[in-house]
Amino acid sequence: MKKFINHVDTLLDESLRGFAKAHADLVEVSFNPRFVRRRAVTPGKVALISGGGAGHEPLHTGFVGKGMLDAACPGQIFTSPTPDQMLAAAGAVAGDQGVLFIVKNYAGDVMNFEMAAEMLDCPTRTVLVQDDIALPKEHDIGRRGVAGTTIVEKIVGAAAEEGRSLDDLKALGDRVAENTASIGVALSGCHVPALGGPTFELPPDKIEFGVGIHGEHGREITEFASATEIVKRMAEAIDEELQPKRGDRVLLHVNGLGATTLMELYLVYEVAHEFWCQEGVEITRSLVGNYTTALDMAGCSITLTRLDDEMIRLWDAPVHTAALRWGC
Amino acid sequence: MKKFINHVDTLLDESLRGFAKAHADLVEVSFNPRFVRRRAVTPGKVALISGGGAGHEPLHTGFVGKGMLDAACPGQIFTSPTPDQMLAAAGAVAGDQGVLFIVKNYAGDVMNFEMAAEMLDCPTRTVLVQDDIALPKEHDIGRRGVAGTTIVEKIVGAAAEEGRSLDDLKALGDRVAENTASIGVALSGCHVPALGGPTFELPPDKIEFGVGIHGEHGREITEFASATEIVKRMAEAIDEELQPKRGDRVLLHVNGLGATTLMELYLVYEVAHEFWCQEGVEITRSLVGNYTTALDMAGCSITLTRLDDEMIRLWDAPVHTAALRWGC
Repeated sequence: MKKFINHVDTLLDESLRGFAKAHADLVEVSFNPRFVRRRAVTPGKVALISGGGAGHEPLHTGFVGKGMLDAACPGQIFTSPTPDQMLAAAGAVAGDQGVLFIVKNYAGDVMNFEMAAEMLDCPTRTVLVQDDIALPKEHDIGRRGVAGTTIVEKIVGAAAEEGRSLDDLKALGDRVAENTASIGVALSGCHVPALGGPTFELPPDKIEFGVGIHGEHGREITEFASATEIVKRMAEAIDEELQPKRGDRVLLHVNGLGATTLMELYLVYEVAHEFWCQEGVEITRSLVGNYTTALDMAGCSITLTRLDDEMIRLWDAPVHTAALRWGC
Repeated sequence: MKKFINHVDTLLDESLRGFAKAHADLVEVSFNPRFVRRRAVTPGKVALISGGGAGHEPLHTGFVGKGMLDAACPGQIFTSPTPDQMLAAAGAVAGDQGVLFIVKNYAGDVMNFEMAAEMLDCPTRTVLVQDDIALPKEHDIGRRGVAGTTIVEKIVGAAAEEGRSLDDLKALGDRVAENTASIGVALSGCHVPALGGPTFELPPDKIEFGVGIHGEHGREITEFASATEIVKRMAEAIDEELQPKRGDRVLLHVNGLGATTLMELYLVYEVAHEFWCQEGVEITRSLVGNYTTALDMAGCSITLTRLDDEMIRLWDAPVHTAALRWGC
């Protein structure tokens, strides 16, 4: 699989250098250890720091800026960042109010963010995002964190910008995470540059239902079908989990995994929208596009977040990052 | 190639229905004939209308809104829209000040927009975008319009919002178009749903240098190489055409063709940035991401626009569309 790269070992840094220059008004990038920070940190606020393996861009580096993250620590592709990155990022952006880590539930990420939290001498809390309902709730490593992370980071980021306390933000983050459910479908595997070939192969008539954002196995390999059938099945899985009631207000996020066209993503949105409209659920906010990718995987995920007044207000609050921007 | 579709014949309308719902605050979609219009048209301004075959999203439908297009007319995938669409769109959004059409230089688009212009009884002008330098200037059908179209639509859109006259906007659009040059590279073909297979096949060690946004043949099929080598060749081609001088201010737009990751696009940006920095050219504005796609083609294009004070001011002016948003 051809890619625009020079060398597997330099890809991440060369890409981050371009990112830093393209968004020089917004971010600064440190390389040793690696982190992306907001150029202008609002004084006196809790610092919001996230991170994880690269390959999911714009998550998380594209969400650094006003009203969202103060810093993001990228690991190598599909590889957890290390505690020295979180420590350096905290050193650069955190003040007396402490640090809230937003962490997707993968063993390496959890362990490394925990180590950083223990080593920091300011107050810290962690919101663990585990929105991927492909695995059962009682799965021994828990559920994976996927596209719902964007929703958590946006809403908590807006609250942090208002100067809310660390405990407040932790409670809010948990509330958003608990009210968020996602499921993904792959039509193809993705190509990790270091591997050369695809992470997995699917026959022409099969899809991976419940795929993870690194190409992890989901619920099952099942028959390819019409978009309406696939999306209905995705929506039913989310609906069963979250059980939104008639009149509930929700945010519907259709996320592309990398190689799926915007035409298809809007079609997926249309089918999912119809599904919940027929249930009397009110889709009051939407996000359609590539936000949590899995390199060049063909596929998409659907995320639903049950909203309350506060969450809606915070979703609408101004944000200025490379990947999400409004009101600024 | 698997896609999220129900039927080739309904894909466009189902996708547009989702688009209309996801951006209901911003746009309205008409289906017979098809066009996307701004919900809130600023009174007394020239109407900006563009369009072209679908499959390049977010271009043009994602650029409808405040500070950019008043309407966009999507044809079927890679197929020109028909004059009745432009007439209906103009009927919906145009007033006494007339209509400026922004048209990519493809025979079908040019013919159909010309027919619409002849049939309209308000003043019309047309800006023809032909920024793709893959073909020689004296090519008998002229050069193709590609990713530079976004730049033209943004800058002219901001000027229209200020209430400038039709002749002014036409002159400005021509100036932006003349100062804009693009070149694309494909690492793979794209998959048109109606065809099933890829538009073209490239061996594992070849790339298509100068590819068009429908997979048209470019300058040559050449050896796959490092990102730095490929990007330098692209930058040299643009540089030779546009001949920016030391101290010139430019906008650098790296555009993904569909299936290329953001990591790679930022790496491409980095290499291109270095190239022009070394020439003493000042990159004062940037845009990196998927804006003019070719369905799921792996590849990217580089666009350079030579800017003046007015163009910079208009680029920075507020815009609120599905795909480009700032200051609102």
